[in-house]
Amino acid sequence: MTFQTYIEEQRSKHLEELFELLSIPSISALPDHKEDTHRAAEWFASALRNLGMDNVELYPTNGHPIVYGEWLKAQGKPTVLIYGHYDVQPVDPLHLWDTAPFEPAIREESIYARGASDDKGQTFMHLKALEAILKTTGTLPFNFKICIEGEEEVGSPNLPVFIEEKKDMLAADVIVVSDTAMMEEDKPTICYGLRGMCGFQLDVKGPRRDLHSGLYGGAVQNPIHAVVELLQSFHDKDGVITVEGFYDKVVPLTEDEKAAFEALNASEESVMNEVGVTELFGEKGYTHLERTWVRPTLEVNGIYGGFQGEGIKTVLPSEAHAKITCRLVPDQDPDEILELLQKHVKEHTPPGVEVTVSLFDKGAPFVTPFDHPAIQAASRAFEKVFEVPTAFTRGGGSLPIVSNLDEILKAPIVLMGFGLPSDNVHAPNENFKLKNFDKGLLTLCYYWEELEGVL
Amino acid sequence: MTFQTYIEEQRSKHLEELFELLSIPSISALPDHKEDTHRAAEWFASALRNLGMDNVELYPTNGHPIVYGEWLKAQGKPTVLIYGHYDVQPVDPLHLWDTAPFEPAIREESIYARGASDDKGQTFMHLKALEAILKTTGTLPFNFKICIEGEEEVGSPNLPVFIEEKKDMLAADVIVVSDTAMMEEDKPTICYGLRGMCGFQLDVKGPRRDLHSGLYGGAVQNPIHAVVELLQSFHDKDGVITVEGFYDKVVPLTEDEKAAFEALNASEESVMNEVGVTELFGEKGYTHLERTWVRPTLEVNGIYGGFQGEGIKTVLPSEAHAKITCRLVPDQDPDEILELLQKHVKEHTPPGVEVTVSLFDKGAPFVTPFDHPAIQAASRAFEKVFEVPTAFTRGGGSLPIVSNLDEILKAPIVLMGFGLPSDNVHAPNENFKLKNFDKGLLTLCYYWEELEGVL
Repeated sequence: MTFQTYIEEQRSKHLEELFELLSIPSISALPDHKEDTHRAAEWFASALRNLGMDNVELYPTNGHPIVYGEWLKAQGKPTVLIYGHYDVQPVDPLHLWDTAPFEPAIREESIYARGASDDKGQTFMHLKALEAILKTTGTLPFNFKICIEGEEEVGSPNLPVFIEEKKDMLAADVIVVSDTAMMEEDKPTICYGLRGMCGFQLDVKGPRRDLHSGLYGGAVQNPIHAVVELLQSFHDKDGVITVEGFYDKVVPLTEDEKAAFEALNASEESVMNEVGVTELFGEKGYTHLERTWVRPTLEVNGIYGGFQGEGIKTVLPSEAHAKITCRLVPDQDPDEILELLQKHVKEHTPPGVEVTVSLFDKGAPFVTPFDHPAIQAASRAFEKVFEVPTAFTRGGGSLPIVSNLDEILKAPIVLMGFGLPSDNVHAPNENFKLKNFDKGLLTLCYYWEELEGVL
Repeated sequence: MTFQTYIEEQRSKHLEELFELLSIPSISALPDHKEDTHRAAEWFASALRNLGMDNVELYPTNGHPIVYGEWLKAQGKPTVLIYGHYDVQPVDPLHLWDTAPFEPAIREESIYARGASDDKGQTFMHLKALEAILKTTGTLPFNFKICIEGEEEVGSPNLPVFIEEKKDMLAADVIVVSDTAMMEEDKPTICYGLRGMCGFQLDVKGPRRDLHSGLYGGAVQNPIHAVVELLQSFHDKDGVITVEGFYDKVVPLTEDEKAAFEALNASEESVMNEVGVTELFGEKGYTHLERTWVRPTLEVNGIYGGFQGEGIKTVLPSEAHAKITCRLVPDQDPDEILELLQKHVKEHTPPGVEVTVSLFDKGAPFVTPFDHPAIQAASRAFEKVFEVPTAFTRGGGSLPIVSNLDEILKAPIVLMGFGLPSDNVHAPNENFKLKNFDKGLLTLCYYWEELEGVL
């Protein structure tokens, strides 16, 4: 029997099992659902054992446990680590759901339930792909490790320590994560890079108290003017960041990557319509995809100082503030960038004020080389099933879990997601297309085939 | 009998009358004190009648009445209008007063009471100066009109309409206001100019909703970046305002004025210590006095956009805002300046956003020429009594009543104040030095003498 046949035959049983899993309200953010969340961990542990995995355990953390299991019988073969999460987002506002979030229902060829797409459904598919191969061939082509956490929706506060402590146990040649979405229906997508970040605050301090702008204005440096001057010094007119050395470590796109992005035929028009502006603006010489995916940025996220009420108050304020995040790309290092920024601020501080820079948050950028065999094999697997070219993307944001896996385990990461932008993840009526469930399962089986010999 | 002798002999009676006036809690801001405020108006009306003034009346307004009286028996002689106000500031926090605000007391040679300096005490002195001259000479050297309003402490909302409606009744050759302070003890001061203003708001609108700065940052114009660019465009590195035509109508200082300012020996050090900065900053090529008194400014009083909470939020906000006031000097016109500003904003609006300019407030600058006989006569009167040179100053702020009197009545205005910076006006323990009460009364009597023949 082929895995294709196996998957078809088992489909209703699989869905039954998935519905059981989706019925557990494992909302990690809500203390009232602590038991439920634990139940979902137990459910996965039991599923891993049924699959024939060894050393299946619930590792306790300061929050919800991490489920782990392994199958290491492919002696001499590479090892794959699969990451997923069993916790889900809260369901408010409940009245906007057409059917109850934890009573899975099929409507219009989609599974409706909280977690159907993010990420119970996709994690479940990994188990079933391995089951299909095991049942039809009696073995697996690689060693497999599966790590399923229960706190992804609350920022994975305990995952980094776990990975660090268990890095030998988790060591792998490739890491596969199915927790992202395809660009659109029937457009299989591989996101092979994400930006890092470096978030900081500027506090500008001038006179010791607010001053009357009539009596002092014009003679005492205004902290708002100073913060404006400082912020303006970060970019030139072409949107290029002017912090010395900022771009030094930026890895340019390869010709293959450029071609892959061009193949997406991304429309600036559609972005303009979506966000409601009449023109886009960004670093000169780059497309909007390049600007958001592979170019670093420095964006002011908040600014405040002086009077904000109705009307006017003739004050020269004592302080002004700005909150800033830089998005970083390979091989920029957040700590190095912060140093460059601090130097820049020091050199550009206007007369008459003191400026403090405080770091808030940082995360390294991540990329798995575009031409890495694990990426290209994923592409071929997608194309076998969907029969269209795979889209290659990079993400403008950060996924902390990906940074953590990347930094600690130092293995290539493949983000193979089967969700869709219309899945309503984190929103009412979360759903997962049955078509993507079926095709995704097949794609995963093909992926392990395609990886053979090239990993 | 000379007016000097009369004043000395009547001193205790004068103080008794003043204490009666200061006992009336005429707090214009508080509805509970409406009757009290009216009582203070009646008190002044009665005092004007006792003085021998004609046509004494309380003119009702939408708020508190305006007291008016006139003495027009100096046929063929010029006319003087004296402006004062009978209302006072609230007294909170009451527990910080050493004696009750409406139970006048003399301590350490000062009169302690709300209104002692601002402005009941100083207005009262004008009545007593005229009384001294009338009683000792039987007549007055000019025609006198006295206008005492009851809403100065709430922004004189009804005064402009009154002046406009009664501009023939109020017409004068010179206007004298005693509602300001001397620079310091024993340093008589004449403020002969004030800056005007033009307050406006910039509203910068970008995308129709807040965007994720990871997903859109770098490709969509950030309204905070746009407002920063716009604000930065208003000044150059030397603090010079770069709005085209902004300085065109600015009247330069005369050599006499420059000399008068230099004679003040104003110390930058003391300003730095007072406000707590290590250096001053302002338009290149001007002293700090010139920067606050005779140069126009453009100051951002408030700025806000995006996230202001603790930590960081990776948002690219939909909007950003700035509140700005320009201080204007003769002969800048607020309406013309607003037009120049709007043109500048239009020409400097960064791509990808829309900017709206809203006017909030405006007021014309005012100056009585430094060499005007009414100014120089006031200087001589001060010097006769205080026996030191008079300081000539201009004010960086605005006094709306002065703008109104200036614009509607078009007569030179002399600000002859006898208060001190230590009088605690608008604060607990308001007080007025007996020395300044005595010397001020004499100065006013001398002033009318000095004005004779030169007005």
